[in-house]
Amino acid sequence: MDMLGMFCTRACSGLMGCRAATRVRLLHSLPGITVEQIDEEVAKLLQLKAKIGGDDGKHQFVLKTAKGTRDFNPKQMAIREKVFNTIINCFKRHGAETIDTPVFELKETLMGKYGEDSKLIYDLKDQGGELLSLRYDLTVPFARYLAMNKITNIKRYHIAKVYRRDNPAMTRGRYREFYQCDFDIAGQYDAMIPDAECLKIVHEILSQLDLGDFLIKVNDRRILDGMFAVCGVPDDKFRTICSTVDKLDKMAWEDVKKEMVNEKGLSEEAADQIGDYVSMQGGKDLAERLLQDQKMSQNKLACAGLSDIKLLFSYLQLFQVTDKVVFDLSLARGLDYYTGIIYEAVLTQAGVAAVTTEAQSGASGEECVSVGSVAGGGRYDGLVGMFDPKGRKVPCVGVSIGIERIFSIMEQKAEASAERIRTTEIQVLVASAQKNLLEERLKLVTELWNAGVKAEVMHKKNPKLLSQLQHCEESGIPLVAILGEQELKDGVVKLRVVATREEMDISRADLISEIRRRTSEV
Amino acid sequence: MDMLGMFCTRACSGLMGCRAATRVRLLHSLPGITVEQIDEEVAKLLQLKAKIGGDDGKHQFVLKTAKGTRDFNPKQMAIREKVFNTIINCFKRHGAETIDTPVFELKETLMGKYGEDSKLIYDLKDQGGELLSLRYDLTVPFARYLAMNKITNIKRYHIAKVYRRDNPAMTRGRYREFYQCDFDIAGQYDAMIPDAECLKIVHEILSQLDLGDFLIKVNDRRILDGMFAVCGVPDDKFRTICSTVDKLDKMAWEDVKKEMVNEKGLSEEAADQIGDYVSMQGGKDLAERLLQDQKMSQNKLACAGLSDIKLLFSYLQLFQVTDKVVFDLSLARGLDYYTGIIYEAVLTQAGVAAVTTEAQSGASGEECVSVGSVAGGGRYDGLVGMFDPKGRKVPCVGVSIGIERIFSIMEQKAEASAERIRTTEIQVLVASAQKNLLEERLKLVTELWNAGVKAEVMHKKNPKLLSQLQHCEESGIPLVAILGEQELKDGVVKLRVVATREEMDISRADLISEIRRRTSEV
Repeated sequence: MDMLGMFCTRACSGLMGCRAATRVRLLHSLPGITVEQIDEEVAKLLQLKAKIGGDDGKHQFVLKTAKGTRDFNPKQMAIREKVFNTIINCFKRHGAETIDTPVFELKETLMGKYGEDSKLIYDLKDQGGELLSLRYDLTVPFARYLAMNKITNIKRYHIAKVYRRDNPAMTRGRYREFYQCDFDIAGQYDAMIPDAECLKIVHEILSQLDLGDFLIKVNDRRILDGMFAVCGVPDDKFRTICSTVDKLDKMAWEDVKKEMVNEKGLSEEAADQIGDYVSMQGGKDLAERLLQDQKMSQNKLACAGLSDIKLLFSYLQLFQVTDKVVFDLSLARGLDYYTGIIYEAVLTQAGVAAVTTEAQSGASGEECVSVGSVAGGGRYDGLVGMFDPKGRKVPCVGVSIGIERIFSIMEQKAEASAERIRTTEIQVLVASAQKNLLEERLKLVTELWNAGVKAEVMHKKNPKLLSQLQHCEESGIPLVAILGEQELKDGVVKLRVVATREEMDISRADLISEIRRRTSEV
Repeated sequence: MDMLGMFCTRACSGLMGCRAATRVRLLHSLPGITVEQIDEEVAKLLQLKAKIGGDDGKHQFVLKTAKGTRDFNPKQMAIREKVFNTIINCFKRHGAETIDTPVFELKETLMGKYGEDSKLIYDLKDQGGELLSLRYDLTVPFARYLAMNKITNIKRYHIAKVYRRDNPAMTRGRYREFYQCDFDIAGQYDAMIPDAECLKIVHEILSQLDLGDFLIKVNDRRILDGMFAVCGVPDDKFRTICSTVDKLDKMAWEDVKKEMVNEKGLSEEAADQIGDYVSMQGGKDLAERLLQDQKMSQNKLACAGLSDIKLLFSYLQLFQVTDKVVFDLSLARGLDYYTGIIYEAVLTQAGVAAVTTEAQSGASGEECVSVGSVAGGGRYDGLVGMFDPKGRKVPCVGVSIGIERIFSIMEQKAEASAERIRTTEIQVLVASAQKNLLEERLKLVTELWNAGVKAEVMHKKNPKLLSQLQHCEESGIPLVAILGEQELKDGVVKLRVVATREEMDISRADLISEIRRRTSEV
């Protein structure tokens, strides 16, 4: 990709046309190039072409947002605000403070934290200062913040956009710029109490968002590592085998096994043993059973993880959330920095699955096993220490709610229902029935604004009454305050209720309280 | 800078050490290099050095945020939230919808919109896809959004971070990543009505934020251009002379004149004539006077601008904001895209000026004339047309509130006052007076959470009562629900009011309503 990139930079800075053509031919002979890379290259050349213009030499803009990103229109923003409020209220109910960090970090801060996924990090161009990258998640900046400020204790939430140069699949809610809503507890506490609170939070948020049924899968990195050890996976293959296990939510076991054996060189025997374990699901009972398992019980790491799972479930019971939590040995999660408990929440309801399947229909006709995760997290006790000059550790556990999929579902629900989403909160439109009343309208709307009433006036000198009333219908404004010569003479305003078309004369002195009374009812 | 940039990329990818040293020597012989560039280069080399490590070869992190950026800690976030709420409430009171756009745009979208300032745009590295840049303001993405979605009518606000590779002066609230709070009205309306509403909004926000006295300067691009024409400025020098005029808030007239004459090659006579005009300040009366001015009255553009200023002031009078608005012919504003009215709000109160002077003390001991703008905007009728394939224009006017300076002032005010800022909203801590009551605490806090009460529990098995009470003092939690063997037996909870140390037994059944009653009082 670097060569392609270099080519285009050069092309853009002057050497175009014939070179571009040469390059396209060159592409065919490049080994190891992927279809996506070719697509991107083509898009880039077309963009260049549009920029250069056709034969007329006229400059033309490509009118679009960057690949994998999108705008939010006012209706989408109204839904987004609703989702955020539910999430923030939950975080606040649990006593979280909030922080914010810059959208980019020193490149170095992000290096070595994401394993294979590091290639998806967006770098900024070197324009003669520091080397910078867009944040890939909110966890690494949080750890950097803790180390930098020597904070050893905090419960914080952070809602912000993160950036991944991944292959976007926007119909499935996969973007290159997307929001994460993170809640983390940092500090030295007694085992599994903060971890259980994170799961309680996921349970509360997914219940309150009313997205249908969901399931929270739980596992522990130590159990995975212990399992790999007792199944005979060589130490240096733990991470790569782990990423293959992570694909079990998208691939059948047969294919996962093939990847382990054929691509990663694992023995078939070891793979089969892993296969037995990763098919196991249960609760506290499963943890107890595995603690008695002939092989697992021999591994210290695995036992520590299993005991913690047991303890976790006892707290989850007190938090009344065990109905949705399952201990699932196939859960792996990709990120490098997890050290203990890990979890992931998936929506399981048919209605949602159907939507996803439809979006996926471009691919094969595979059955829709999993809907994709809407939340995930885990314990990362080593990450802060990676930033501390003396390596001082701060144990952390957290959860990240991925809301793009939640937005999609809420949007579809909103479209399906007849319910109208208002995108403004205007209580009253100040209108006039006759011409030449602009001054009077501006005076009245000023009175209302100064009293804190949400009010609007049309920006025309002489708008028609009909178009003013239409504006109210369209934007869902409940009241119209109509001025006319007679009303001005009588010191009143004609207040019209848009929904019922009821009209009444209100004295100027009573107008504000009348508007407040009527809109607090609504 | 490109050479420096290229060098460092190369160095980072492997060729270090001796080359770096060579390069440092090389720097001395480079012509036209600025002190800032050298500083940045040095910082980069030191960063490299730290990365390579000392003689021990140990990798060391540079623990910092990127230059010109900062984190927000929970206290700062609490202040930020307060400022945002005031601003958003005002925008909503005026009927604005909200949108969001991606943090980066196609590089091409931003090109040719910012004049000389384009060099401050952050570009993303070409990693084999589209060429992207971080947004420089919210206005250009807004115009792109309107053109892309063929929207001809909208009143919208957008609060988001923008990016400028400017020289940061963080003590003065100048950052490379900073928030803008934009309110814009797009659509074909009668002259000056939307423009006046924008000024009304600035007036409302600055009054409500209670930042001391302020002044909103108003001018019009057409008046400036007309003035340049009648003063004998050649057409092709309008823009560059305009940027020099823009410096009048930071430089004395003498120096501005020098720049015009010596650097920009304007005749002294023309400069003096400009000098006469740009010293003029007034209101509607000044616009009327200039409409009679021998020279100005000959210029059509100037007359159109002056008539609009007159009209604007008549609306501002109805909006009751003329006390803070002044027509100031020295106001220029840098951005290329303005076509009509322009404005800028400055804080004028001594208390604020003092703070700024102190921060500036590193520079010369100049008197503090202006505190710097906290809001600015204007009319840009041509920008949307630049994006529309058919060049269809959508007239727009808007204002941008720059809140970094406002944050700084609010922070200083908060520090000066004894008032304690709470960073969480927890109403009650569930505590225990004896050991082995973790289960009971978790059960009770679950009851409270499920009822929507903001509650916390310490994440320890057996926390001391004293440390639990201390936590309440520190975080400003008003109530403690204390469990003990006796209370459990009696089916009650001991509710303690932290401020008064008053304690009372409340039956479990009444606890939630009692907490609600007591915290709604607070």
